[in-house]
Amino acid sequence: MIAKVPKRTLSEALALLERVIPSRHSNPILTHLHLSTEGPDLCLLGSNLEIDLALLAPAELQDEGTALIPAHLFAQIVRGLPGEIVQLTQTMGELHVESGNFKTRLTTVDTADYPEPRFTKNGGLQVGAGAFAKALGRVRYAASNEEYRAVFRGVQLELSPERLCAVASDGFRLARYDQPVQSTEVHTIVIPARSVDEIIRVLKDESGEVELGFIENSLVLYSPRFRMRVSLMEGSFPDYERVIPTDCALEVHLDAEVLRTSLRRVSMLADKSNHRVDLLFQENRLEVVSEGDYGQGREELHTEHQGEPQKMLAYNAQYLIDALSQIEGMAHLKMAQAGPTIIEAADDQGYLAVVVPLRV
Amino acid sequence: MIAKVPKRTLSEALALLERVIPSRHSNPILTHLHLSTEGPDLCLLGSNLEIDLALLAPAELQDEGTALIPAHLFAQIVRGLPGEIVQLTQTMGELHVESGNFKTRLTTVDTADYPEPRFTKNGGLQVGAGAFAKALGRVRYAASNEEYRAVFRGVQLELSPERLCAVASDGFRLARYDQPVQSTEVHTIVIPARSVDEIIRVLKDESGEVELGFIENSLVLYSPRFRMRVSLMEGSFPDYERVIPTDCALEVHLDAEVLRTSLRRVSMLADKSNHRVDLLFQENRLEVVSEGDYGQGREELHTEHQGEPQKMLAYNAQYLIDALSQIEGMAHLKMAQAGPTIIEAADDQGYLAVVVPLRV
Repeated sequence: MIAKVPKRTLSEALALLERVIPSRHSNPILTHLHLSTEGPDLCLLGSNLEIDLALLAPAELQDEGTALIPAHLFAQIVRGLPGEIVQLTQTMGELHVESGNFKTRLTTVDTADYPEPRFTKNGGLQVGAGAFAKALGRVRYAASNEEYRAVFRGVQLELSPERLCAVASDGFRLARYDQPVQSTEVHTIVIPARSVDEIIRVLKDESGEVELGFIENSLVLYSPRFRMRVSLMEGSFPDYERVIPTDCALEVHLDAEVLRTSLRRVSMLADKSNHRVDLLFQENRLEVVSEGDYGQGREELHTEHQGEPQKMLAYNAQYLIDALSQIEGMAHLKMAQAGPTIIEAADDQGYLAVVVPLRV
Repeated sequence: MIAKVPKRTLSEALALLERVIPSRHSNPILTHLHLSTEGPDLCLLGSNLEIDLALLAPAELQDEGTALIPAHLFAQIVRGLPGEIVQLTQTMGELHVESGNFKTRLTTVDTADYPEPRFTKNGGLQVGAGAFAKALGRVRYAASNEEYRAVFRGVQLELSPERLCAVASDGFRLARYDQPVQSTEVHTIVIPARSVDEIIRVLKDESGEVELGFIENSLVLYSPRFRMRVSLMEGSFPDYERVIPTDCALEVHLDAEVLRTSLRRVSMLADKSNHRVDLLFQENRLEVVSEGDYGQGREELHTEHQGEPQKMLAYNAQYLIDALSQIEGMAHLKMAQAGPTIIEAADDQGYLAVVVPLRV
């Protein structure tokens, strides 16, 4: 194999693969990058067993070949290369990397023991790559970091005829993003939150469609530029629909960014144990108040107000800030008579957040 | 005290003070910021006992006063304030911080127990703030991080009539920066490297002169904008002049940046234990070679060459990279028959670096 690739193409691919390929592993072969020729492309493959990722880079190729090289060292070398074009030349037991006046010889490893990635194609669902990444990105923040109820450490993906829905929750708050799709399939899967982050990164530069394949214990994503498999979590979320209130005693509209920055400021004074902030809703104004060991913070905001003339609720400020950070423009806050608060985006029907107030 | 201060002025002062004021300390009063009025200025003072720093901020003032408030919380609040102007109002036991629609009340602490800073003025030496910061900044990298021979964890400042010289070393390499000054005093002091970093930061925005005062166990810096005291280390450097070679068998000139980036690339392949890189000097060219467990890196550079036709030396690549990082433009490398290598800057006579080659 002799391949000529622009340094930039190689760097971008390696930036994604470096996040997947472990720098240490009990099976050292997994710390390597698998290079191969595939038609007119150079294929760069990495895996941590949880995620397999193959990226196709257009290259000027001579002869077929496969090589296994230390991934993180190779990525570091590529970033520092002096020229615009990188030439990779495979010889017996070595890969030569050349660019400008710089030459490296990297010792290669036998590819025979490298685990075969499971990019099984089963004719799945076509979705817009950007829309799919957006749905995952909007709810990701609500996934739990706690060991307790492990399934909440993932994002649930619900495919029903004509709807694709992403949901995350940690038991105290919930985020859901709903989008219409053309499908007859029905699946409910839970993707580990860390794998969700990598899917979002890989899809970031993808303008077209991506195909989702639902195979045993895995979700597979295909596009002309990449193939990706992520292992799924076992189980599914408990019925969360019942925590979303259906009545609404008070509805308040205000700019999401204005409320979010105010919450940040005021909550600096909050009790560090529960980040408590009090929202005092009154006719067309909202008072945001926090009090802790060092003093008190207070700010008044203008709102549009419909329903009960006055209501006081206490929240974990960070939960509100997170829910609002996914909204551009106006936010709608809907308070039920009792129970959780709904936060919606005026300009994005797909997004719904639910935050449980603190009991005070 | 009522003070109106631009948010930006306050933020910039707090950014410097936040680095000095500890966030935790066995004496909790040190985690506070000391505010006072001083003529037309608001004086912001902080200390970690090693460093005392007082910054003067022009303000619109009413009534005198002093207050002690939690420093890091206050800095965080100021950064997040919505308005351009901050009003600080002192009442019994509280400081009110107001900006835009936002209001905070911070509980204040009695100032009686706050340690008195020792900004004793003794009519010291006037130096250009920029030139002084440059001298310290050019040599700082060579200070040691090891506990062994503690005095090397500082930067030595040598004031002799007409010369101010900053020196740092870790026993394997040395950096010296020499500048002419108007002085009749003689002092040799060692400033802890961490305090050197803070001095450089404080002087960064200072365009005029700074006055250096040499008092017992401390260096004091004064300017119209700030006062700073740093505790000194005990002892002084052993005689380092004798390790600087005086003969020169080979002198090589090349661009510092070119050599530095090449060393970075090639040394990625180096043995991780000693970062060994081989420099093979030949007539008008230099070959940079490194070899380790994963393969070999090699690059050829063009040089101007005077003296012995050929010479091979091995170095810790990082030592060369550090020494070159302080040079803009051409670097001169001077190799003695045996012993350390001298690195100088063609465009800055004040700088001298010495690197001991590896024994191979």
